[in-house]
Amino acid sequence: MNKVNYKKIEKYMLSCMETCDVAHDAGHIYRVLYNALEISKKYDVDKDILIASCLLHDIGRNLELNETGSNHSDEGGKLAYEFLISTGWSKSKANRVKDCIITHTYRLNMLPESIEAKIVFDADKLDLSGAIGIARYIAYSGIASQQLYSMAESGTILSAEQDKESSFFSGYHLELKNIDDRLHTMEAKKMFAERKKEHSDIYNRLFNEVTESHHNGYETLELFLDK
Amino acid sequence: MNKVNYKKIEKYMLSCMETCDVAHDAGHIYRVLYNALEISKKYDVDKDILIASCLLHDIGRNLELNETGSNHSDEGGKLAYEFLISTGWSKSKANRVKDCIITHTYRLNMLPESIEAKIVFDADKLDLSGAIGIARYIAYSGIASQQLYSMAESGTILSAEQDKESSFFSGYHLELKNIDDRLHTMEAKKMFAERKKEHSDIYNRLFNEVTESHHNGYETLELFLDK
Repeated sequence: MNKVNYKKIEKYMLSCMETCDVAHDAGHIYRVLYNALEISKKYDVDKDILIASCLLHDIGRNLELNETGSNHSDEGGKLAYEFLISTGWSKSKANRVKDCIITHTYRLNMLPESIEAKIVFDADKLDLSGAIGIARYIAYSGIASQQLYSMAESGTILSAEQDKESSFFSGYHLELKNIDDRLHTMEAKKMFAERKKEHSDIYNRLFNEVTESHHNGYETLELFLDK
Repeated sequence: MNKVNYKKIEKYMLSCMETCDVAHDAGHIYRVLYNALEISKKYDVDKDILIASCLLHDIGRNLELNETGSNHSDEGGKLAYEFLISTGWSKSKANRVKDCIITHTYRLNMLPESIEAKIVFDADKLDLSGAIGIARYIAYSGIASQQLYSMAESGTILSAEQDKESSFFSGYHLELKNIDDRLHTMEAKKMFAERKKEHSDIYNRLFNEVTESHHNGYETLELFLDK
């Protein structure tokens, strides 16, 4: 892919992402692309397919948000196919990009098949790891009005395992455990393992800080209140 | 304050906070209360005033969101006064709580005067420090559709100082610098200094991670694209 063609796809992507949420904005697209390029150094890939698929993987997000019943991967795959055909790509290559986009969200009956599709899937999931993974999860809590953590009647904070409500703590814990198992390429698994130290550390520091605050605060409050 | 009266105010607070955003939910109220109790150990305070003011300091948030031109501190102060009078508090004590609530947001012409008002202000600002401070800021970015960071044309990430757009990086940097100067009590300044290490470290790790990702990724992309 030459720079002119790259810029053409990038421009279309930016126009589609303008109204997307903070966890799925242009920054996410570039990070996914950069993750994919890093993974692909170890594999024999078609660069055109990989780059176009990464840039366009989330262009269907607004359709999922605005219309009922549609999945952003399916919608994005269709949009990408039409766009690439309109810029002169062959049906065969445009279809390969479409396939990468359709399989980038986790659906048991629709797993990525080509090496490019596997890399796009993995690169997207890697953006849930590390410090940026934590930040995107917390931003999502703001978007979805999901509390950061749940409290027990006793005033203590529930651990991710105890928390049965929708919260950042419970969701993050559950999702991260799954990501580890779902990655397809060895290189992505290696990158995930390196970033795990980072997101686990930040998560634990936040958890310990609020747990201590609630625990100590509740005890102090008991002393402050008249018997 | 006895436990029965505490529970009465807590119940009213919870009913007011139900639809508040993630950065200003019940968890925030308890953390502010616990910060205030910790600060107050070093000062001679009226516990009734302090506890009621902390619990009720953000009950006007929904009025600020739903009506035009109103400030949540003023609205909350009025609501708190009316509620406390209805539960048998004297006008004089209810007015002191109202004052603490009205001055808990930073307004140059309306600074906190009593020691309880100063502690409520400081305790609220302390919830922007530490790991929870970072988390609340990021959640706010999600709520306000504010991007996490801005990118230069060259693909690099702008530092907080360079970033003139509204973003988590620029906002957090600016606000935290201000908080340090605005705290009223020595004890809160001490607590802020202890927590600063935590939020600075997490912020720097996130900044370095995404900066490196964009820098390296952009360089790799240049190599991938045909000349």
